[in-house]
This record gives sequence, structure tokens and C-alpha cells, in this order.
Amino acid sequence: MNFIRKITNSSPAEDEEFIMAIKKILGYRPKKINFYKEAFTHSSLKRTNEKGRPLNYERLEFLGDAILGAVIANYLFKKIPSGNEGYLTQMRSKIVSREHLNELGKDLDLKRFVESSISNNNFGDNIHGNLFEALIGAIHSDRGYSFTEKFIYRFVIEPYVDIERLEGKITSYKSVLIEWSQKNKKKIRYHVYEDTGNDTLKHFSVKLSVDQDIISKGRATSKKKAEEIASKRAYYKLKPQIET
Amino acid sequence: MNFIRKITNSSPAEDEEFIMAIKKILGYRPKKINFYKEAFTHSSLKRTNEKGRPLNYERLEFLGDAILGAVIANYLFKKIPSGNEGYLTQMRSKIVSREHLNELGKDLDLKRFVESSISNNNFGDNIHGNLFEALIGAIHSDRGYSFTEKFIYRFVIEPYVDIERLEGKITSYKSVLIEWSQKNKKKIRYHVYEDTGNDTLKHFSVKLSVDQDIISKGRATSKKKAEEIASKRAYYKLKPQIET
Repeated sequence: MNFIRKITNSSPAEDEEFIMAIKKILGYRPKKINFYKEAFTHSSLKRTNEKGRPLNYERLEFLGDAILGAVIANYLFKKIPSGNEGYLTQMRSKIVSREHLNELGKDLDLKRFVESSISNNNFGDNIHGNLFEALIGAIHSDRGYSFTEKFIYRFVIEPYVDIERLEGKITSYKSVLIEWSQKNKKKIRYHVYEDTGNDTLKHFSVKLSVDQDIISKGRATSKKKAEEIASKRAYYKLKPQIET
Repeated sequence: MNFIRKITNSSPAEDEEFIMAIKKILGYRPKKINFYKEAFTHSSLKRTNEKGRPLNYERLEFLGDAILGAVIANYLFKKIPSGNEGYLTQMRSKIVSREHLNELGKDLDLKRFVESSISNNNFGDNIHGNLFEALIGAIHSDRGYSFTEKFIYRFVIEPYVDIERLEGKITSYKSVLIEWSQKNKKKIRYHVYEDTGNDTLKHFSVKLSVDQDIISKGRATSKKKAEEIASKRAYYKLKPQIET
């Protein structure tokens, strides 16, 4: 679905379509829809509000970043009573790393909402994390701290934050998956193919299947990296099974 | 009042004294008193909890720092609708600067609560800001986000955050005070004296009086600096009168 040019100057029907798409992510209907529109407005549009200040997602990104930092700090503070301040700081850096936030934004496919004047919305990778933070800022402005905290638990902490992983106890997701498949008589297969597309660097894509089902995909500049990315994604999908 | 060695291994009467002192700051009785005790335990004691992890204020300081950052970000986001992300970031840096936090901790005289094994509790200046952040962490752990937000409004934002000042519109508090005194026929006097004390560097102290009353004090390595510190403190005390 492509919302480009639908967010502003939008008809009521287009607004409703946008609201429903946001609702699908949040699990409830957003109230102050303008914050969400702002969260997906790129600075390239050079849009301003009635007072002349730039209207784009960057202010909400600033807010979302701060709220995310606080929620994660509080989570770690409670979750790791044995960790000193240096350790908590380090864990938080891993959770809110640019790389991780980009992954979160990509998983929600937030880029489909962006309005910009850049051709093909070709922004570079950080757009995903920026939009994710801006979305957090919008939720906070719309619904306040506790709603936002719940969102962060649901989308950041529960699916992704695995203290053992952050502590480095898992170094290869591929090995974890293979070990699990052998124990549980599952057939794991990595289907790797060259997929350079429009990139200047050579790229590889991987489809990871368990028994007959494709569970996850990965794409990177080496076969090994692409396999590890796909393995990590599969790990989180299969986590309830892997851990029992 | 000196609480040293009273916080841990304390009698119920000593606990009550500590609780009442905290209550006097917060305006309500703290519930989970152990968080406040931890907030004033210095690492030099090398104290550990039953599981062997270091027990000192640093974890709470980590938490408090994050909560403070979020509350200030949200305040600025709402307060300065015309400010872009870079501007909000810059304003926040000023508010949560080490120097400013030290001032806040000093004003509450938080150091009187500290338990340490350092002779004369001679910690250096950052102790004030660290304790202030740890206190914020304790309040959050005791009472949650909204209570903490209110505390930060009352102790950081309302008395100290003056967007005009942060924007650099006030460069000398002394000039502002003198201008105000001339307009209002007040007699301002700076009583400066050498006050090097135990320091190796020469220091000066200033008492600032308005008419006959001493309004504030300042101490620094130059007369000019000490006067400016005292002026700034006086400015915030007199702010309601100065602004009307």
C-alpha cells in the first residue's frame, strides 16, 4: 500500500485509510491524527506550519528518542537488578542502536507512509529507525506515557529484547537454529541467490525454510551475513518453540 | 543536619528522621524508602546487596538521567512549537547540563544525606548533580512516571527553566538585577570577601542584599564570578517581582 501524497491534502476517505493502517499497528484508533501525519512527513517537502516552523518528523523523532530511552532504562533497571550502571548503559545502547531501530521500522514497513519529495523515497537506511522514533513521539503526544510504554514493550522489548542475546551468549543464530532443528527433527534449508538489484555492490538474498515453509528472508553483501540475518529473524519467530 | 551513618543500620527513629527529611523535599511521604537510601549511598562504601551486586546510587542515577531527559524533551516539545529538532536538543542540553544539575542538587543540599567512606564527604562538585539524578530515579521507582514528572516540573522546570534565559537573552544577571533595582528603588549591595577556606585556589564569597535583607550568596574563584552566581540565585528568588 502506498500512502504517498495521501497524508496531507487528503480526502476524508484517504484520512480514514491512513487512520486504519495506523490502528492496525497500534491496536487502537489514534485520536490526534495530525501527530501521525507529522511523523511521516519528510523534511524534503519543506513544509511549514501556520507559524512558519518546519513541519516534518524530526521534532517527533527527538521526542520519541527520549521517551524510548526512558522506557528502556526503566525496563533494564527492573529487569537486571544485578547489573551496575555501566552494564545497564551498555545494554541500552544495544537496544536503541541505529541498526536495531532501523530493523524495527523496517519490520513495520513504516516507509510506506512517508511523504517526501525525494524520487522513489530513496532515503537511505536510517529512515526506518527515524520513522520508528517519530511514531513513538506521535503516540506519546496522542496518548501519553503509559500508552507509549505499552507500545514499546509490545514492539521493542517483548519481541526483540533478549538479555541473553544482548549479553553475547548467542553469537551465531544460524548455529542456534541448526542445533534446534537437529534436536527437533526439523529440516532447515537456506536458499541463497545473487540479488544485486540496483545496488552497486554485489548482494545476496537468502530464503530460510523450516520443513516446507519459508520462515524468513535476509539480504546482505555476503552469503554468510545474509544467512545470519535470516537466521536471526527466524529465531525470533520461532522463539517460543526454541525455548521450550 | 547530618545523616551520615544513619541511613543503613539505622534505628527506626533514624529512619523516620530520614523519611521526614525526604518528605520535606517531595511534599509527600516516600513509600519505598530503600530506593531513597540507595540514592544516597556512595560507591566508596563498596556495599553490595544480598546477590553481590554493588549497591550505590549509580543505577538510580542512570534511571533518573533517562527520566529527566524524557520529561524535559516532552516539556520543550510542547512549550516551543516553533523550535526545530536541533533547537530542542540544544535547549535540553542546557537544562540538563552537569553545571545546572549540580546547582539543583546543591540547592536541595542533597549532600547532607550521603553515606560514604570518603573523609569529610569531599567528592568534588559533580556529586550534587549525581545525587539529584539518583533522587529522580528513586522517586520514579517509588511512585512512577507522573509523580516524577511533577517533581521535575516543580524543581527543575518551574524555578529554573526560562526559555528566554536559555536563548541567551540574559547574559548578565547582575545587570538585570541592577536595572530592576533602579526602576524599583531598591538598594542592592554586594558584600564581597576573601573566603579561600581549605581550597588551594583563592576563592571569594559574596552576600547579596536587597534593601536590608540578604537574598543570596555566591562563591567562586573570582569576585566577578561569585557576584554573578549570587545574582542568578537572587534573580530566581525575585523572579515573580522582577517580571511583573
